[in-house]
Amino acid sequence: MKVSVLGATGYAGAELLRLLYSHPEAQVVHITSESHTGEKIDSLYPHLSGLYNMQLESMKEIESIGRDSDFVFIGLPHGHAMKVGQELENLPVRIIDLGADYRFDDTEVYEAWYHVPHTHKDAPRVYGLAELYRDKIRDAKIIGNAGCFTTASILALAPLAKEHLIEVNTIIVDAKSGVSGAGRGAKVPNHFPELYDNFRAYNACKHRHTPEIEQAMTDLSGEETIINFTPHLVPMSRGILSTCYATLKPGVTTEMVNEAFDKLYGEEHFIRLRGLGAYPSTKEVRGSNYCDLGWHVDERTKRVIVMSAIDNLVKGAAGQAVQNFNIACGFDEKTGLDMVPMYP
Amino acid sequence: MKVSVLGATGYAGAELLRLLYSHPEAQVVHITSESHTGEKIDSLYPHLSGLYNMQLESMKEIESIGRDSDFVFIGLPHGHAMKVGQELENLPVRIIDLGADYRFDDTEVYEAWYHVPHTHKDAPRVYGLAELYRDKIRDAKIIGNAGCFTTASILALAPLAKEHLIEVNTIIVDAKSGVSGAGRGAKVPNHFPELYDNFRAYNACKHRHTPEIEQAMTDLSGEETIINFTPHLVPMSRGILSTCYATLKPGVTTEMVNEAFDKLYGEEHFIRLRGLGAYPSTKEVRGSNYCDLGWHVDERTKRVIVMSAIDNLVKGAAGQAVQNFNIACGFDEKTGLDMVPMYP
Amino acid sequence: MKVSVLGATGYAGAELLRLLYSHPEAQVVHITSESHTGEKIDSLYPHLSGLYNMQLESMKEIESIGRDSDFVFIGLPHGHAMKVGQELENLPVRIIDLGADYRFDDTEVYEAWYHVPHTHKDAPRVYGLAELYRDKIRDAKIIGNAGCFTTASILALAPLAKEHLIEVNTIIVDAKSGVSGAGRGAKVPNHFPELYDNFRAYNACKHRHTPEIEQAMTDLSGEETIINFTPHLVPMSRGILSTCYATLKPGVTTEMVNEAFDKLYGEEHFIRLRGLGAYPSTKEVRGSNYCDLGWHVDERTKRVIVMSAIDNLVKGAAGQAVQNFNIACGFDEKTGLDMVPMYP
Amino acid sequence: MKVSVLGATGYAGAELLRLLYSHPEAQVVHITSESHTGEKIDSLYPHLSGLYNMQLESMKEIESIGRDSDFVFIGLPHGHAMKVGQELENLPVRIIDLGADYRFDDTEVYEAWYHVPHTHKDAPRVYGLAELYRDKIRDAKIIGNAGCFTTASILALAPLAKEHLIEVNTIIVDAKSGVSGAGRGAKVPNHFPELYDNFRAYNACKHRHTPEIEQAMTDLSGEETIINFTPHLVPMSRGILSTCYATLKPGVTTEMVNEAFDKLYGEEHFIRLRGLGAYPSTKEVRGSNYCDLGWHVDERTKRVIVMSAIDNLVKGAAGQAVQNFNIACGFDEKTGLDMVPMYP
Repeated sequence: MKVSVLGATGYAGAELLRLLYSHPEAQVVHITSESHTGEKIDSLYPHLSGLYNMQLESMKEIESIGRDSDFVFIGLPHGHAMKVGQELENLPVRIIDLGADYRFDDTEVYEAWYHVPHTHKDAPRVYGLAELYRDKIRDAKIIGNAGCFTTASILALAPLAKEHLIEVNTIIVDAKSGVSGAGRGAKVPNHFPELYDNFRAYNACKHRHTPEIEQAMTDLSGEETIINFTPHLVPMSRGILSTCYATLKPGVTTEMVNEAFDKLYGEEHFIRLRGLGAYPSTKEVRGSNYCDLGWHVDERTKRVIVMSAIDNLVKGAAGQAVQNFNIACGFDEKTGLDMVPMYP
Repeated sequence: MKVSVLGATGYAGAELLRLLYSHPEAQVVHITSESHTGEKIDSLYPHLSGLYNMQLESMKEIESIGRDSDFVFIGLPHGHAMKVGQELENLPVRIIDLGADYRFDDTEVYEAWYHVPHTHKDAPRVYGLAELYRDKIRDAKIIGNAGCFTTASILALAPLAKEHLIEVNTIIVDAKSGVSGAGRGAKVPNHFPELYDNFRAYNACKHRHTPEIEQAMTDLSGEETIINFTPHLVPMSRGILSTCYATLKPGVTTEMVNEAFDKLYGEEHFIRLRGLGAYPSTKEVRGSNYCDLGWHVDERTKRVIVMSAIDNLVKGAAGQAVQNFNIACGFDEKTGLDMVPMYP
Repeated sequence: MKVSVLGATGYAGAELLRLLYSHPEAQVVHITSESHTGEKIDSLYPHLSGLYNMQLESMKEIESIGRDSDFVFIGLPHGHAMKVGQELENLPVRIIDLGADYRFDDTEVYEAWYHVPHTHKDAPRVYGLAELYRDKIRDAKIIGNAGCFTTASILALAPLAKEHLIEVNTIIVDAKSGVSGAGRGAKVPNHFPELYDNFRAYNACKHRHTPEIEQAMTDLSGEETIINFTPHLVPMSRGILSTCYATLKPGVTTEMVNEAFDKLYGEEHFIRLRGLGAYPSTKEVRGSNYCDLGWHVDERTKRVIVMSAIDNLVKGAAGQAVQNFNIACGFDEKTGLDMVPMYP
Repeated sequence: MKVSVLGATGYAGAELLRLLYSHPEAQVVHITSESHTGEKIDSLYPHLSGLYNMQLESMKEIESIGRDSDFVFIGLPHGHAMKVGQELENLPVRIIDLGADYRFDDTEVYEAWYHVPHTHKDAPRVYGLAELYRDKIRDAKIIGNAGCFTTASILALAPLAKEHLIEVNTIIVDAKSGVSGAGRGAKVPNHFPELYDNFRAYNACKHRHTPEIEQAMTDLSGEETIINFTPHLVPMSRGILSTCYATLKPGVTTEMVNEAFDKLYGEEHFIRLRGLGAYPSTKEVRGSNYCDLGWHVDERTKRVIVMSAIDNLVKGAAGQAVQNFNIACGFDEKTGLDMVPMYP
């Protein structure tokens, strides 16, 4: 398959290039960047030296890029993908957007949280969280790849919501991410000396991944859900750990919790059930497409705590995009993604 | 005042030596270590070269140490301080224990969580969280210095509990600590390559700081409280950030929350009210005795989120011990502690 | 090919398992550990969960392991491999030792620096630095895989020594390594809080990689060489940067330096000539088998400075072992090693 | 003494504020920033909350600032201080410049390396490396505070150069710095994910601290000296380790090396002679004004290796400025600087 990457100079774009290099069925034909048009990708990312000898193009020729490609991956800030989606609407090319434009069923929710009008409301799109929405992904024209925090958090909570084991409106997600999640744009708060040996939260109560988790919880549980989501910045490059709290419904036992995880994920390759009492860690999934899950039931407070570890750039972005690509192409889902995490 | 430090070779002990060096009213007369008796402290901690030319002694001569000292600081694992406390019971020396032995009013709670019998149940002790229990500390024989996570968490929640603004049984504390909190003992899980670029939780539902927070919440609110407390390990040396969640009681407004913080802490030197919407960070208090507080009110979920940042070795251990020492001696509380955090 | 890994629980052993998992021609049949015999490898390294469901065996059954295997990789401390080498001498199995036992032509040098008698002096061995000794590796019974610092340093200096462009006795190698190079054994100096936000040297003038570099320089230049080698510990997990200084011979020009690199490495896949004036960085090769080289000619002092970046666990250990395995088997050298470095 | 800080929003400026806060003889009267004029300093540096309630002013009113101040500290990029120096020439205020403008006796050297014309060539200035030029500092109008790398490197080599124990033209300085040395300006190469778990060199053969070291070596040894200086970036916030190599002159013994250090530094408070065979580390001096020195003599190569550790923001910038201030005021040199390094 011929694939192109729009916005190849961001971290998610560069990670896509890493993964696609080893994908036996994909050939990268175009890469774009508006601020670096004409430059070689390895001048911006020397780790690609000798591996990608490609020049960055402008997106202005999007139609011709679309014509050359079976799939277009979009790694642009929100607001841009919906324009691309419209421009490529009548070409056979399919789209996997790593941004937020195509993640919401209800575009009013998007507009309320992203503060821009949605201009492609009737797009033929599906939510790209592979393990939960695989069937819809298969034939989708446009796949709205799930966000990084949301992938970790929804995968952690889905079995409990789906089996109605928790009071969904007690959900609190306390999430922690490495700094690559904030992108490659240099600014003082993410300047090395500011974050090193430092830890803090940001965007409490207003992070845009909140409604994305709520949408999935509502969908899975059948109950209108609102939650608290608090992201934190960990002084490390990669990785997300999501610590998710919820009150168990009366009568729910630890066995029922265990069974819910087994039932939903027992056959999933990329979800590793580390089990009751386990503490997944971000380094144990680093560089891979795995989501590791551990959970704890507190008999005193009747709460369940689920911990979920992913690599934000792989399962939280580029890896899931490739997984969705595999599903959409009918390939084995592991194609190009069957690697061991890099430890230590 | 003549002071001695038992267990001077742990991180909290070494930090005490750092702070006491600059304290105009304290002179360190004895330092002890059972595993390094006879060695010079600067052979174990070269950063003390030229500053402390003292030899480590054994605690076997505790009575003579007690006779020489006005105050004894104890930086030993739990279980040891209660023996020391009994042996020094009849000497005029006063004790500040940085461990857990003297933190609980109800020694059965101690026994249930620490799995050892308490052998000094009738000790004349007070809980050493300076801002909340200052009056009792003044004349105490034995001060049970508050724990690191607990100091951060109790200070975050105290105004809300005391003013009855929150449902105390909805409290969830998601806490994150630098690795110095785990002590200086080398073991694989805290080996550098294992933790670097890594993040994980530990001891969910069973960390021993849980009942200490519950004791304070129960005391302040007048309601029997049980909570969830989940500690995490951040790949950094120092610092704790505690993210505390609770549901507001009906009718509680943001203004009432703001006022509760002002009322309790408006005059406190070591508590910096960074305010509504603020994100305190661990580096902004590094090396200092400050506790920085920021809070957020979620109008959608009716929850309040308080974030609290301390240096675990200062306000969470040695600094608070010196603050308690100042209170107990009638000195200005800032004596020896009035320094600027080290940033960046 | 059937391969076994002796000492699979060290970092180099675990990295071998990572690389061999993706190697299409290798099947791991035995893994050993004396201290963890009987345990599952993924209980020690949870990042391998679901990928290696193997039990650790004891080396006591070395003959039977040797009989089952086409190749044995040895990741044991020095002194152990020579025993294994002798015990497997008469079996057809071939050996790749990641330790030092088979690296020296002159076993007296080994004995002088390692302080143990060499008990397998007549072993049919070759020095396993793939780019320089490829021809000998092809048919070797025993391959003494080059050390991590030495791989980086020798590759940096080889073109200059071989073309007689430098005064070899002016060579100074100032090398810096991530902490995984020190192994997984927990000890206070490598405890997380001790190294984080810290930097220091160790083993100046006496590190055991010194004579290994000297052996290669002597061999390549034809002049008896002694050098200074100073290793440093960088607060990071992986990676080596070697900064190598030497005085140019009279009349040597920058062009001659450039040409020497092109001549020796122009066709090498795993050596990336980043060129004159370039600054290779460890992250740009992380997780990969690349060695990136940049060099600088100081017109004022007539010195050349070569900088070399590798991943100490890949090109400095497990990756080079697989590369040597490929050479020894007649496979394409890139087999199982053709991956993009993980950045950021 | 009334002091002002020009350029208070850089890391060196902020560190000056930290140190001056605890200085019993200094009162900060003005702080300036052109890009943040009118803002409160603690809005830019929240760690100063409650400690400095001052507004940043513009330097446009430099004369009035100069009139109000006994001392002006300058923390501006090179090129600016010489203008300030001229404008304050006729006021009694004295100047301590943390930049490079006043560091060179020969302004042509400055112009050659800094690529700007020097406009204050006849300034009454001294080189502000306290331990070596104390006598001249006492009465200086303008003190050109030594650079960070240069302080570490010159202090390491001075005893050997002064006693003529080394061939000065064999000096190679391989230096490593934490990222705060690059300032607070955000740019991609110093963006957190780019540097974390990464290590590289920069500005080999052309870093501007080279001629500053050469000037001192020439002065101390009486021989015209040119050296190699290679800086590296360590993924940490603070600290410099300088590894300095030189060939011993014929007949020089280890004892003579030891004695040279004792002779020059035996009485120096801020230089800690960790001794022959020692490995000073940056964390052991973190936050303090100490320079720790260890040295090694290689009997095989007849080279001496001196390692020097400082905190780049303290002894390498703000701390040395305060030390120079103390000298210039006739105070005890330790005033405001007598603190224990922060470890771990």
